[in-house]
Amino acid sequence: MSLPPVVVIGAGLVGASIGCALTAAGYPVHLRDAKISHARVAASLGAGTVDPPVTADVDLVVAAVPPVALPDVIAHALHSYPQATVTDVGSVKAAVLDTLWRRELDLGRYVGSHPMAGSQYSGPMTARADLFVDRSWVITPHRRSRPESVARVSELVRTCHAREIVMDVEDHDAAVARVSHLPHLMSVLMAGHLNQVPENHLLLAGQGLRDVTRIAGSDPGLWVQIVAANSAAVLPELRSIQARLAEVIMAIESRSAADTLREQLQRGVEGTRRIPGKHGTAPVAYSQVVIEIPDTPGALGRLFADVGKAGINVEDISIEHDQARQVGYLSLAVTPEQEPELITTMTDRGWTVV
Amino acid sequence: MSLPPVVVIGAGLVGASIGCALTAAGYPVHLRDAKISHARVAASLGAGTVDPPVTADVDLVVAAVPPVALPDVIAHALHSYPQATVTDVGSVKAAVLDTLWRRELDLGRYVGSHPMAGSQYSGPMTARADLFVDRSWVITPHRRSRPESVARVSELVRTCHAREIVMDVEDHDAAVARVSHLPHLMSVLMAGHLNQVPENHLLLAGQGLRDVTRIAGSDPGLWVQIVAANSAAVLPELRSIQARLAEVIMAIESRSAADTLREQLQRGVEGTRRIPGKHGTAPVAYSQVVIEIPDTPGALGRLFADVGKAGINVEDISIEHDQARQVGYLSLAVTPEQEPELITTMTDRGWTVV
Repeated sequence: MSLPPVVVIGAGLVGASIGCALTAAGYPVHLRDAKISHARVAASLGAGTVDPPVTADVDLVVAAVPPVALPDVIAHALHSYPQATVTDVGSVKAAVLDTLWRRELDLGRYVGSHPMAGSQYSGPMTARADLFVDRSWVITPHRRSRPESVARVSELVRTCHAREIVMDVEDHDAAVARVSHLPHLMSVLMAGHLNQVPENHLLLAGQGLRDVTRIAGSDPGLWVQIVAANSAAVLPELRSIQARLAEVIMAIESRSAADTLREQLQRGVEGTRRIPGKHGTAPVAYSQVVIEIPDTPGALGRLFADVGKAGINVEDISIEHDQARQVGYLSLAVTPEQEPELITTMTDRGWTVV
Repeated sequence: MSLPPVVVIGAGLVGASIGCALTAAGYPVHLRDAKISHARVAASLGAGTVDPPVTADVDLVVAAVPPVALPDVIAHALHSYPQATVTDVGSVKAAVLDTLWRRELDLGRYVGSHPMAGSQYSGPMTARADLFVDRSWVITPHRRSRPESVARVSELVRTCHAREIVMDVEDHDAAVARVSHLPHLMSVLMAGHLNQVPENHLLLAGQGLRDVTRIAGSDPGLWVQIVAANSAAVLPELRSIQARLAEVIMAIESRSAADTLREQLQRGVEGTRRIPGKHGTAPVAYSQVVIEIPDTPGALGRLFADVGKAGINVEDISIEHDQARQVGYLSLAVTPEQEPELITTMTDRGWTVV
């Protein structure tokens, strides 16, 4: 039995990658783009065909166009493909839905969604079927969404091997304000500040500055649409940062910086530990394996040789001393998965694991 | 002729890596650390020996200890090694120098320096001789530094294959406030904010958030020393960010966000373009190679196949159409080094490069 055709409107990175994933799963995919050449690039990469579908057969339309174009494209798709569930991949949901409500459309077949993948390069050239594998993909049903349409979008998420998260639109928009739009604006503020920095000072820039400012290099035309569309959710986050920043500045001005700084820096460390791992796993908390070592030069060399032979990747190290017993305690930080192997290996080689 | 001995005080990542580079170049290196085991770890990695030197022979001492310990260690080294040039690798220079001046020491043999390398892991375990290769290394002579001592530190920089930059201490401290301490605090503010974000919202976190917050995971104990020591230089940078942030917030509040946002986002893009490349080279500005293509489906497929065969890494792509002539213009962004090869390859294969 052949699978029903899908229409992907917008052959940028996200649209073309969805096309690749659906094509790989056996769906006939029909690509459309305001620039036919973009659709052709995507087609040449295996994302589908540029031939038009039989409209009555289409059972899913994916709108993967810039935020400002979404309401028109969604409304048009609902009209043009009367049997199809229509979804979009926009990064802000409430503003689009509000616009659609105001047009008094029957939105039963519309279910918004948002795959958490993509990059600053927005063209189809880097499209690939596995772009969404193990990534979060939010589905945002509204009060009139039909259950079968929600199920159809769920199936899309599964076909792309992404992880489905169901949220209402307001919750989604608050979440992306916090984990995406605010970090973007922080990166932009920092990068924008570099325009005031003399060139010879920039020679001292290291990887840290590059990391903090990387996303600020993204397309301003797209981001002004995103942030403006979600400004209501972004505003309280910015005000919260503003309050913390004022605290830091006041602490430095009053020369009582150390305690406030320490508290903020500690909060920062705790915040980084809350971010889930790359594939939605728990944040990496390294396991500490503590090994007793005689306090002699040769001992450490032998120990590291044994760790090295075991092929274990040591992330950090610290040493404590027991002056009375003339031994040391070497603490090795390794990923939790490597912990049992390290303990076994070192015990087998005659070391005492504490 | 044997090279004169060097003493490295502090066998963390930076000290141990300097030891490795000096040892590789033939210098006898003597490692010292408040924790002898740290020195032994460094020694086991080829950074030198833990045996004491003949003090009168020592001609260079490198203080690679945490900021708060620097004045005492430098003062002690000037006293203990009467023939030696003494340098440090601290990330803030004026505060240490001021403290030393107040002690009324003869500072002729002291010349501060600051290699722009290291990582959030501060132990010796990841030390390597090539840590500083092609990295900037600032030398900050003061008004009493002897020329021969400045020359000795220059030689250290050359031995580590780093790029020497000479600055006065105030200029250095302003530079690191801008390219290191401010980005660190921005990262900390963002990461600290995550403590207020519900866990299910964090499931939507992507690489952007990880990049922006990565350095906030660094040791707060070290960073409170660094920022507190350089607070005078950091303060005006924070105030400048505060002013920009207030502008963004006011623009969103007054619902005139789009123009202000666009301006800030554009400033951000321009700022990222000012950061030099990894090895001090110019920022990466991709070259655009424009190729004429017949407006037929097969043409694009063939073109990409040819680009692929050439082994060229295409960073971005855009297509423009000439409706009248039924041709398109495909613009490929590649690194400037790959540009001539791409042009030659495509011309050889029969394409018209515009």
